[in-house]
Amino acid sequence: MNDILALRPDDTQPTPLYLQLARNLETAIHAGQWKAEQAMPSERSLSEQLGISRVTARKALEVLFEQGLIRRNQGSGTFITPRLEQPLSRLSGFSEMLRLKGFVPGSQWLEREITPPTHEELIRLGLSPTDKVARLKRLRKADDTVMAIEMSTLPASLIPKPQAVGDSLYAFLDSIGKPVVRALQHIQAINASDEFAALVGIAPGTAMLLMTRVGYLEDNTPIEVTDTYCRNDYYDFVAELRR
Amino acid sequence: MNDILALRPDDTQPTPLYLQLARNLETAIHAGQWKAEQAMPSERSLSEQLGISRVTARKALEVLFEQGLIRRNQGSGTFITPRLEQPLSRLSGFSEMLRLKGFVPGSQWLEREITPPTHEELIRLGLSPTDKVARLKRLRKADDTVMAIEMSTLPASLIPKPQAVGDSLYAFLDSIGKPVVRALQHIQAINASDEFAALVGIAPGTAMLLMTRVGYLEDNTPIEVTDTYCRNDYYDFVAELRR
Repeated sequence: MNDILALRPDDTQPTPLYLQLARNLETAIHAGQWKAEQAMPSERSLSEQLGISRVTARKALEVLFEQGLIRRNQGSGTFITPRLEQPLSRLSGFSEMLRLKGFVPGSQWLEREITPPTHEELIRLGLSPTDKVARLKRLRKADDTVMAIEMSTLPASLIPKPQAVGDSLYAFLDSIGKPVVRALQHIQAINASDEFAALVGIAPGTAMLLMTRVGYLEDNTPIEVTDTYCRNDYYDFVAELRR
Repeated sequence: MNDILALRPDDTQPTPLYLQLARNLETAIHAGQWKAEQAMPSERSLSEQLGISRVTARKALEVLFEQGLIRRNQGSGTFITPRLEQPLSRLSGFSEMLRLKGFVPGSQWLEREITPPTHEELIRLGLSPTDKVARLKRLRKADDTVMAIEMSTLPASLIPKPQAVGDSLYAFLDSIGKPVVRALQHIQAINASDEFAALVGIAPGTAMLLMTRVGYLEDNTPIEVTDTYCRNDYYDFVAELRR
């Protein structure tokens, strides 16, 4: 209740009330005041509790809607969009990042097997053509929403039994004394194939982010190539740039 | 000529010759040995000059083609794709980055005007609703190829005459003593609208990268919101991540 009152706009300020309220709501969302897929206070409840007009509350919610921070479910109110803000400087596991944001992380394995590498994997992992790779493919979930498809390839010498990898690949690599400490990540936009669209529940052709990561050991040996196909509406990749 | 000879694969190594050649070519491309849109040595010339079989040369070029590093123009040979590798940590102007890579940067202005801000711009730039903004929209080119559409919004108080901004917005801001020293950049994938597709010469709906940058002065005042719609095949955004 006190949390809600902190959102109240200040009518001694020159900034319009709806913009103040929108800013306050934005800050509260980023601070995790509501969890993903949890209903936001309605237009009516904002208006009543904050002593502002319905129009002001409506216009503030409109701004958040335009920013993609909330979405409306027919008949059941307004919900926070489950966005995963991911800084492009820190190498942190998906599960760890989700827990920080108050989501429940999950994965669903599609493939865990030993196969020959592709040309590209041979080059990126510095393998010889007779080497094999462990191929891991899974859906990444937040609170049961499929956020991404993740496909990792590692030298089979590191992971002879891919079934042994649990929820966290990085935790597994830590446990065998081969932690990935640094990675280079390339970012592309792609149109979802029919297969991927069906897996993550979007229309074929929808733009997705493809993150291609090569992970290195302390001694600079590349041991991991991971392609992550991210639902664009759920991910918010952020980089801080300096001159 | 010596440059070409440096590409020669080493047949005492266990790695297949075509993969070695592909790796060497990749390194040479990244090092800028050929300029964008410049013809690469052909399969025949690689084979003759390096004393390798045509099959080896063809397979090496095939690997580069799969990686998107080169493309074939019907009848006129194989060309380097003009890719702009952009680190997601350093804030550097588009023109500066292109020159480093050996491209000739150019822009074509579509709009330079003073208008009222949108809700979002009001919030991001911390403006009051009576403030105006300078709106700059242009095509960004490399060697006459349109790479991106860039739309910047700044407080009109900083740029009362948008026509005065030349090729480099950052150079202009430096010249008036308001350098942008830090920026936060969000990355999304979008489907190209009909308008944007026509402007950059791709099919409508093709996935593009949308970079949304907010630029800050030394004292942390936000003074720039820039949306850049990038042709995905020409940009290579790279981030280095550490644990």
